[in-house]
Amino acid sequence: MYDQLRFDYLGCYGHPHLKTPNFDRVAAKGVRFTEAYAQSPVCGSSRMSTYTGRYVHSHGAANNNYPLRVGEITMGDHLRALGMGCWLIGKTHMTVDAEGMARLGLAPDSVIGARQAECGFDVWIRDDGLWTNGAEGAYDTRRSPYNEYLKARGYPGENPWADFANAGLEGNQVASGWFMRNAAKPANIRDEDSETPWLTDRAIDFMEQASGPWCAHLSYIKPHWPYIVPAPWHDLYGPEHVLPAVRSEAEREHPHPVYAAFMENRVAQSFSRDEVRETVIPAYMGLIAQADAQLGRLLDWLEETGRDRDTVIVLTSDHGDYLGDHWMGEKDLFHDCSVKVPLIIHDPSPEADATRGTTCDALVEAIDLPATFIEMAGGEVPRHIVEGRSLMPFLRGEAPEDWREVAVSEYNYAHTPVREKLGVSARDARLFMLADHRWKFVHAEGGFRPMLFDRAADPQELTDLGGDPAHAGVIARMYEHLARWARRDSQRITQSDAQLDRRMRSGAMPKGILIGVYDEREIPDAFVAPYRHDIPTG
Amino acid sequence: MYDQLRFDYLGCYGHPHLKTPNFDRVAAKGVRFTEAYAQSPVCGSSRMSTYTGRYVHSHGAANNNYPLRVGEITMGDHLRALGMGCWLIGKTHMTVDAEGMARLGLAPDSVIGARQAECGFDVWIRDDGLWTNGAEGAYDTRRSPYNEYLKARGYPGENPWADFANAGLEGNQVASGWFMRNAAKPANIRDEDSETPWLTDRAIDFMEQASGPWCAHLSYIKPHWPYIVPAPWHDLYGPEHVLPAVRSEAEREHPHPVYAAFMENRVAQSFSRDEVRETVIPAYMGLIAQADAQLGRLLDWLEETGRDRDTVIVLTSDHGDYLGDHWMGEKDLFHDCSVKVPLIIHDPSPEADATRGTTCDALVEAIDLPATFIEMAGGEVPRHIVEGRSLMPFLRGEAPEDWREVAVSEYNYAHTPVREKLGVSARDARLFMLADHRWKFVHAEGGFRPMLFDRAADPQELTDLGGDPAHAGVIARMYEHLARWARRDSQRITQSDAQLDRRMRSGAMPKGILIGVYDEREIPDAFVAPYRHDIPTG
Repeated sequence: MYDQLRFDYLGCYGHPHLKTPNFDRVAAKGVRFTEAYAQSPVCGSSRMSTYTGRYVHSHGAANNNYPLRVGEITMGDHLRALGMGCWLIGKTHMTVDAEGMARLGLAPDSVIGARQAECGFDVWIRDDGLWTNGAEGAYDTRRSPYNEYLKARGYPGENPWADFANAGLEGNQVASGWFMRNAAKPANIRDEDSETPWLTDRAIDFMEQASGPWCAHLSYIKPHWPYIVPAPWHDLYGPEHVLPAVRSEAEREHPHPVYAAFMENRVAQSFSRDEVRETVIPAYMGLIAQADAQLGRLLDWLEETGRDRDTVIVLTSDHGDYLGDHWMGEKDLFHDCSVKVPLIIHDPSPEADATRGTTCDALVEAIDLPATFIEMAGGEVPRHIVEGRSLMPFLRGEAPEDWREVAVSEYNYAHTPVREKLGVSARDARLFMLADHRWKFVHAEGGFRPMLFDRAADPQELTDLGGDPAHAGVIARMYEHLARWARRDSQRITQSDAQLDRRMRSGAMPKGILIGVYDEREIPDAFVAPYRHDIPTG
Repeated sequence: MYDQLRFDYLGCYGHPHLKTPNFDRVAAKGVRFTEAYAQSPVCGSSRMSTYTGRYVHSHGAANNNYPLRVGEITMGDHLRALGMGCWLIGKTHMTVDAEGMARLGLAPDSVIGARQAECGFDVWIRDDGLWTNGAEGAYDTRRSPYNEYLKARGYPGENPWADFANAGLEGNQVASGWFMRNAAKPANIRDEDSETPWLTDRAIDFMEQASGPWCAHLSYIKPHWPYIVPAPWHDLYGPEHVLPAVRSEAEREHPHPVYAAFMENRVAQSFSRDEVRETVIPAYMGLIAQADAQLGRLLDWLEETGRDRDTVIVLTSDHGDYLGDHWMGEKDLFHDCSVKVPLIIHDPSPEADATRGTTCDALVEAIDLPATFIEMAGGEVPRHIVEGRSLMPFLRGEAPEDWREVAVSEYNYAHTPVREKLGVSARDARLFMLADHRWKFVHAEGGFRPMLFDRAADPQELTDLGGDPAHAGVIARMYEHLARWARRDSQRITQSDAQLDRRMRSGAMPKGILIGVYDEREIPDAFVAPYRHDIPTG
């Protein structure tokens, strides 16, 4: 998983300038999904859905630093129960439910507690890649394995992540990557010591010692901001490779109020300036090119060791990046460039031969990944817990029955200044997106009209039809879908469908519960027998 | 809490024959709620909502023996954190999430584990009152404190609950209360040894030793079936006191398919026979009369000890009992007699003087009880966890702002033979009721039309308008309510509104996360400072 990697910033997804031969190499031997959606266009909530197989509305960790409730069942729980290890190498952006753990008496240094604190993973290495210190302290107060590595490699100071890996040089001063005007500078670090190669080394370390079936979540922070990359990647691309922003003046004329408020954010204002796009996007592309090269190292290692023959490769991201499209920066809303993710799966088994190098346009969601892994590990997807569906049929060229008709993604902005601007309550600061192949619909709580895009007539999503009476029918149908989805049976996680089937067939009578029986003759003798006896005497 | 006590089978709620002077005594000094709804018309799910303050759709324990997921936050968690004990005396119908506890390594014999296993209560005594043994074993395999008591009192045999407390005599044979034809017989037990007096004794034992602020859930199994009661209660009422069944031939003509399927259940068929009603209802009334007498003992004890002056009394039930109304037996569906509950609250504090002896017709729900108790314990209701609202304003004669416009109740029949009859999937075997003061609306998943009753024109709920095009507007409005309710923010339990407010106001910049900053001059110096320094040297 790459963080903030736009689906269309890969060669195989059609970027006209950016070369990603290694992503393309996996696509050539696997299936490339063209309609894959993140469950939330922001790291934390998107990932908690990927790790649990459940919608954000189900697990409740609705944005970054909303802790994942203790006891929420994860990919790691499912896979370990099937005899498959489940390891973390890199970032999760998971916040521990410390209050919940204390309430249940779970010690963070116990095996169970540690897994709870790491959303179900066993930790090979965890590094969320945001080692920044502000005026009021550090964003992430854990130990940083990456900073430890840099120090061991001789980089000086307390925070070489900030001063070298994510900064260039300006005279003898740190030119921080946090200031985007520095994006075009080379990061002041050797390529092999920068984050992506470092984590790739850790992944190879892991694979070299791994035995038994395993699932490894190799989770890169890049191409996420700070947007800065060491030589030679920093000037591989230039302003001439920056695609024109996908935006129109009409978008700013009568925007939906929620969209309008997001457009006012600093990052949106910044990326609306050509100078910013021309400085930042080449660095973003350089980070992807570097990631591609490191993917090449992994693929080579797999081929050299023969492990390519029994290793499934899944390439994806947690959300995209607006990069100035639609007058927006960052992610947060639901235009394709933000909410869609690349998804490429290579399954080496012969059953998947028929689909190699093909694309699949089914509506797939990030929550389908744990379901897929459970099937790969030989299990049956517990549908009362995991809301995603296995993608295995698509890898085998089969068309699953009753596949979903809409993909759903959510966004909670209750902790952001946008809520204050809009004056909505914490519980109303929520957005729901529903997309089918033709339409994309967004409902905003708090009394706003919906947004609607015609993906066929307007693939660039420039015209919001949400206020257009001519589309009332489509909107009503989408509200119908949303209502059915919202009513879904998402919390019955302690009773499986199979258990319910068994109970349905047996009833309570075998256990002695006789409901509505007036007379013994109404029921079979076997059920009467326990009650037919003399008064006991003592 | 009384189990299966119909709201209208109390004197103060208008029963013309049944005398309940002690319930009426509490009503005379408290507030009687006339529109109180169970969150589910069946024990387990109703109670799990009462104990958590959360809708069934939120906690997922959707019927009897659907375990309450480990870690679900309960009344006990909230109250103990406020320095108030929270004790169980009687029944919960809670099923432990043993798999979840094992997954988290919680030992049932640890303090935390035991509370998890008892939905947050500390157990003074637990007895669910269903000590039955069928052809394939016992319904409840725990130890039975009540059976132990009976044995100690000299009742012989393995299961005096079944053979004496819940059975009459037929010659020298046990005449089991499970067979309703025996309901008119006196139970073969001394009154003072039967379940209601026994549990009342336990409550007095508890109060005699209790110190510090406490909440005690005194939870009687009766008047729940088996319908049988010892002398003198067994013949206090006779067929002449049985009200005519509230039902019409029209109800059986074109019933809603789900209603039709429930009408076919044995218990519905039984209670549709006058002979059954005339035998069972007097026993049911006798059980209530006995409960009333025992309530009198408790009230007397409180008055004699002066504890009436600092003890709040809340009388309610978990759901009602059809008793043949609407051609139904038991509960399960949403006619008033099944889904409404009595609710009487006596608050001895002077602030409540203004409302003594009054009624309140606000739409209140069982989930409001824990919210009320939290406020009584001096806390603030954590609205990101507890979905109910405190009833304190009603006790003080205040009208809370923005009180709910609809009450919601749910029913899951996935484990019942009704599902097989209807041919719906486990996840579609779910019903949602919405009631306001005028309408009662029921949505059934699985492609059925809704049900609708006009409570004003048809207070007996005999005419289902759910298929009537003339009511399409009301139905659409109810679907709108249901959709909004279903989308509610119910799982964001790890982030309070206050935490979100704080984050909204501070942003991430103080912690060093600078998003969208192109140039240092765009932000205050304090946020730039951490990045303005020379390259470290080592």
